[in-house]
Amino acid sequence: MTGATGAARALARCDALAELSSLPGAVERVSFSPEHRGANALVGGWMAEAALLVRQDAAGNVCGRLEGERPGLPALVLGSHLDTVTDAGRYDGMLGVLLAIEVADRIDTRSLPFALEVIGFTDEEGTRFGNALFGSRAFAGRVGDDWLATPDRKGVTVAQAMTGFGLDPTSIGDAARRPEDLVGYLETHIEQGPHLLDAGRSLGVVTAIAGARRFALQVTGRAGHAGGTPYARRRDAAVAAAEIVIAVERISIETGTIGTVGRIRAFPGGVNVVPGVCRFSLDLRAEQDEQRDAAFARIDAAAREVCERRGVTWSWEELYRADATTCDPALVAAIESGIRAAGDDEPMRIWSRAGHDGMAVTDVTGIAMLFLRCGNDGISHHPDETVTEADTADALEAFAAAVLAVADQHRA
Amino acid sequence: MTGATGAARALARCDALAELSSLPGAVERVSFSPEHRGANALVGGWMAEAALLVRQDAAGNVCGRLEGERPGLPALVLGSHLDTVTDAGRYDGMLGVLLAIEVADRIDTRSLPFALEVIGFTDEEGTRFGNALFGSRAFAGRVGDDWLATPDRKGVTVAQAMTGFGLDPTSIGDAARRPEDLVGYLETHIEQGPHLLDAGRSLGVVTAIAGARRFALQVTGRAGHAGGTPYARRRDAAVAAAEIVIAVERISIETGTIGTVGRIRAFPGGVNVVPGVCRFSLDLRAEQDEQRDAAFARIDAAAREVCERRGVTWSWEELYRADATTCDPALVAAIESGIRAAGDDEPMRIWSRAGHDGMAVTDVTGIAMLFLRCGNDGISHHPDETVTEADTADALEAFAAAVLAVADQHRA
Repeated sequence: MTGATGAARALARCDALAELSSLPGAVERVSFSPEHRGANALVGGWMAEAALLVRQDAAGNVCGRLEGERPGLPALVLGSHLDTVTDAGRYDGMLGVLLAIEVADRIDTRSLPFALEVIGFTDEEGTRFGNALFGSRAFAGRVGDDWLATPDRKGVTVAQAMTGFGLDPTSIGDAARRPEDLVGYLETHIEQGPHLLDAGRSLGVVTAIAGARRFALQVTGRAGHAGGTPYARRRDAAVAAAEIVIAVERISIETGTIGTVGRIRAFPGGVNVVPGVCRFSLDLRAEQDEQRDAAFARIDAAAREVCERRGVTWSWEELYRADATTCDPALVAAIESGIRAAGDDEPMRIWSRAGHDGMAVTDVTGIAMLFLRCGNDGISHHPDETVTEADTADALEAFAAAVLAVADQHRA
Repeated sequence: MTGATGAARALARCDALAELSSLPGAVERVSFSPEHRGANALVGGWMAEAALLVRQDAAGNVCGRLEGERPGLPALVLGSHLDTVTDAGRYDGMLGVLLAIEVADRIDTRSLPFALEVIGFTDEEGTRFGNALFGSRAFAGRVGDDWLATPDRKGVTVAQAMTGFGLDPTSIGDAARRPEDLVGYLETHIEQGPHLLDAGRSLGVVTAIAGARRFALQVTGRAGHAGGTPYARRRDAAVAAAEIVIAVERISIETGTIGTVGRIRAFPGGVNVVPGVCRFSLDLRAEQDEQRDAAFARIDAAAREVCERRGVTWSWEELYRADATTCDPALVAAIESGIRAAGDDEPMRIWSRAGHDGMAVTDVTGIAMLFLRCGNDGISHHPDETVTEADTADALEAFAAAVLAVADQHRA
């Protein structure tokens, strides 16, 4: 199979996966849902067609393995995630898994000094439980009881959802891998931004993944009748939250960080009731962890000032924290060699503003990433997310060549 | 039965009604729900105990009637509503219906020159369908097909909900009353504000009910990945909405109107997704309709400026509009006479910032209202909504005396 037809097949499979959605006419596939089950079955079938030995691990990740020059060698793992945000595109995550299957299909692994594994992680996005990288954290042995007790919006905990999915949450440790069983982790992913597009390049090599912190924010005031509560007596949680949302944007721009309020909702939510509570989210990321943490301190101070002035209460809880991840230099070099093999002599280096499973995997093995150009202004987490077949073919070419480059490093 | 024991019974019945809730540990009772059915059954039973002839009308209002000095006379109607907002108090609406039953229980209607009717309206608040005063608009013959086609958040229309409740939506016209069958409408209600509390009075007479307009507002931008979308390319619907929420407060205060954003929600609502859509509500009211409409024009202009600057789209839909209602002078005089009978020689006049069923009923008969003091800073639409038994006894005394005063007017 050529790069072009492999790319076309991977893209067609992205379309097939997009049908596994909990929303009519839109894509949403969250962890431990019927759609998660369907995606694992479909991807597991494609892995099996490519002769991989397929299993679902204790965290709900779908894993396929091809042995190397002899059985039982440590594995080079290729993968990405199969879950999505709400009203998602069809490439973020999925395309990386499907290209990994194409690589496994193209390479004769019997000549490799390592085994090749392909993994489709679950719950990279954190859409259901607010807590990202579940599958890859479990892969790294970093999922504890607190995480298993986290509820979704309906009060179903991760552990309960796993049980409903047919998994045993007390066996989550079985998903953990040992460093000695791993050679490294390579992931291909759409850029989810416009930097490759603006530079006129189809591919880029990721040198680092920005750290991110995610918070649940809350303003608590006092509900009251919209007509009967004079302004002087109001303790309106939504207006205070609105001031904080604007402060997040201002402070993020001033500090060169990226702050996003993706979720906001006022309670009790009556059209004629002054909101007593407003809950909203904050996602904060930066190239440097210190820069990100300093921005949060300023946001927190600004929110305290707003809430004190308005007689309401400010509180927050950190849901997720990942520090910046540096990619493994040897694996970065292998990706660069792959990009050159695909015809670009000066591989572009880029830092990822988005989080990725590699941030978790780095705890047990070195990681590197290949980015592929997005169309449409680099839009992602949106139905208009797009890639071209030509860029996808370049990515497949480079991804396969990178695996062979890792093999050359191991033989050297 | 004395005023004191009647008041105690009415308050105990408010507690009993509060148990009919769709929320555990909180009060929410919306139209055409199982709780609506339960409330009508309970209130209908209490009406029957007071010898009223009870029926449920074509709109789901519960109605009880006592004939006057001869059968078939036009009726003086006493009432309020039995539905609630979300996480409501237990007096807003219900107490007025229960005090009306106490009045019917105390007065020998066989000596009245009119019949006495008690009515418990449904869906004054508009909690489920966003459109207030359903029961009283139907009473006034003002519910059309558009209204019946309005969906709730789950897509169930008013007509479908009525059918599920056992009503025939095509017969909604049967709930309409003819002016010649009515003498007037009197309603007792908690003030839902701090004005009586601040004035040190238990009761007040309402001279006018402020007009209100309610809008569904929407900002449409473009969803994108929180990490991958640089600020210069963002079209963040939530930040634009936040600016508009703050503008609503500023313009309302500047124009002496009352503007409230009770509902706000960002979509798709992922913690790591730049919001592509933000939906929020606006409730706007003022003593004068012109003042309110001028304030909305300023809010609309401010929102256009915000959205143009941010490259997002602004749209709104008016869900509800009620112009200011003037109370009937003779009925106001009857309420004042009732307040004097309860021991307050200088009845306080007040305009209602909140909307009430009387705004709809005024289309078919004259209306007046008796307000009763709220505790807790006048808080309402909140579980902390409270009244005292002494004030309730005063209200019952005044309400019964007002009915007798209307009878005197008719005999004169």
